[in-house]
Amino acid sequence: MQHQPIIFSNEVSKSLAELLENLPANRTFVLVDQNSQVVLSKIDFGKLDPQIIVIPPGDTNKNLDTLQKVWLELQSGGATRNSLLINIGGGVVTDLGGFAAASFKRGIRFVNVPTTLLSAVDAAVGGKTGINFNGLKNEIGAFREADAVLISTTFFDSLPEKEIKSGYAEMLKHGLLEDYQTYRKLIDFDFSDIAGNQLLALLEESVNVKRNIVVQDPFEKGLRRALNLGHTAGHAFESLALHRGEPIPHGYAVAWGLVVEAVLSKMIKSLDSTTLYELADYIYRHYGVFNITCDDYYALLNYMRHDKKSEHGEYNFTLLAEPGDVFTGCVVDEESVKAALDIYRDLMHI
Amino acid sequence: MQHQPIIFSNEVSKSLAELLENLPANRTFVLVDQNSQVVLSKIDFGKLDPQIIVIPPGDTNKNLDTLQKVWLELQSGGATRNSLLINIGGGVVTDLGGFAAASFKRGIRFVNVPTTLLSAVDAAVGGKTGINFNGLKNEIGAFREADAVLISTTFFDSLPEKEIKSGYAEMLKHGLLEDYQTYRKLIDFDFSDIAGNQLLALLEESVNVKRNIVVQDPFEKGLRRALNLGHTAGHAFESLALHRGEPIPHGYAVAWGLVVEAVLSKMIKSLDSTTLYELADYIYRHYGVFNITCDDYYALLNYMRHDKKSEHGEYNFTLLAEPGDVFTGCVVDEESVKAALDIYRDLMHI
Repeated sequence: MQHQPIIFSNEVSKSLAELLENLPANRTFVLVDQNSQVVLSKIDFGKLDPQIIVIPPGDTNKNLDTLQKVWLELQSGGATRNSLLINIGGGVVTDLGGFAAASFKRGIRFVNVPTTLLSAVDAAVGGKTGINFNGLKNEIGAFREADAVLISTTFFDSLPEKEIKSGYAEMLKHGLLEDYQTYRKLIDFDFSDIAGNQLLALLEESVNVKRNIVVQDPFEKGLRRALNLGHTAGHAFESLALHRGEPIPHGYAVAWGLVVEAVLSKMIKSLDSTTLYELADYIYRHYGVFNITCDDYYALLNYMRHDKKSEHGEYNFTLLAEPGDVFTGCVVDEESVKAALDIYRDLMHI
Repeated sequence: MQHQPIIFSNEVSKSLAELLENLPANRTFVLVDQNSQVVLSKIDFGKLDPQIIVIPPGDTNKNLDTLQKVWLELQSGGATRNSLLINIGGGVVTDLGGFAAASFKRGIRFVNVPTTLLSAVDAAVGGKTGINFNGLKNEIGAFREADAVLISTTFFDSLPEKEIKSGYAEMLKHGLLEDYQTYRKLIDFDFSDIAGNQLLALLEESVNVKRNIVVQDPFEKGLRRALNLGHTAGHAFESLALHRGEPIPHGYAVAWGLVVEAVLSKMIKSLDSTTLYELADYIYRHYGVFNITCDDYYALLNYMRHDKKSEHGEYNFTLLAEPGDVFTGCVVDEESVKAALDIYRDLMHI
């Protein structure tokens, strides 16, 4: 897989123009959803005059109907293999737009411009494109990296705080995967300056952690499982919340999942107590608590055993000996998982 | 793009078993259409017990509806990224099945077993997968080579002669692209032994011509246009025939297109007369004649100018100085194309 250029800039129009100079196209299309459409007013496309394709927002629209709509608009707009698609939006736009581009005429070039922190730090980079199909998430898609990614924090100042924090949890994860210093900077960051250059610098560091992992494992054969840190327990919380009829943002689930998996890391890989308590305290103060009782253990254990990363129904985690010292594919026994849930409740003052 | 194994064998069950040993899968699926289904009786899958997916035949069914049906059957059959799809059939099965595999869960492995000469020599090798969409052929798809291809002439003995000859035209094209000796063997071949080992040996030589070109240009950036020999004029004949309501097999159109483009090769690249006359005579005897008059020139010229290989509405051909000495992207003036059509009519005794 080629090394894609990722530009970090808060001068969006200028940087986009520079970036597009290296991607000459006979026709340019821009994909937005009804949420991200608003940021078009912040971008000057110069003489480019792209054709705008608007899709309905939300994960429920990340489906074949919407994909067909994009294909049809590319076709009716005269897109050829020399055309370019610019995806401007959150994860739904970059995932679906990426697959539309990867499959139209067997592949046209595309650029991602994430407008949420979560998509900047996660979906826009790494080449996982796709749609949901017949009830399963990301069931149809392709591994295909964007030809370029433009990341700017200027898009984030209108985002609700929950959305920012949701993305920030993935940044914390990347910090823990990299080293203590990277992680430390994140828990010291002052949240009051979302659109400023300090967050942009932290974001650049964070995205590079992911990129370095993806470059070594583009098709998710092994190493990339490191990115699963916090997600085995996090997905279980997410599923339980959904089952309760009170869905929680993905990043919040990951944050609470990181606490559970840091506990397991202490138990099994001797992660030091200070790091664990510091993390639990940070999550408690910024994300609050996901409430569970012993009665939820059975369901949570079941969700974890059926995680898609668990091939044989075992409990499979990514664990840390210390920040930056990562073990993937750790199989953990059921008693230890239960003990970790107990300690999670202690740490969260439940 | 990786170098895919292509096995040429008339011991189908044994060779398939050997080939699948290198592609261990948790579940195996076989895709056939209602035409190719019959060859399943010729294949012993041993203890594999694959799940069979049957789709309706023909190019009109190479569409999104059929693709969805395959995705759904893979899903309900419990396919994971460690599963395998074996496409057994003509070009529709290998094109659509290849794209189904390339896109299911962002890509599972697949094997092609072509059951027509045309798909063996053309569609099954080279990584072009896809479906027709909204009236345009192969509009949606991916470049993705099969993980292995098994080619056997034993499947061809029940094919109608027209089908065999249609595929054979692409072999003639490959011969002309390679060298005189390869081409000569083809026009000396005795058609009475279709399922025998002699055709298998010729086919191996022919497929390797294509493979050597594809390996050098997997994404069709330039060199691969060599494979377009015979196709600019051939597609025009095919379109005209369709317009007349009397469709002709693709390979027949290519055969007659080869004659027109050999005439242009003589006019512009000094291809020797003996090769031209020999080719024209061979095509005349085996494929008969596609009838055209001066009144058809306007339509034919229009089709040629709008060929998808002509980016700017010019007449664009692949031409030969001699067999094996290939020039791609030759822009030819309108008078020369008309003159070539005149000479085609002479050579075809029209």
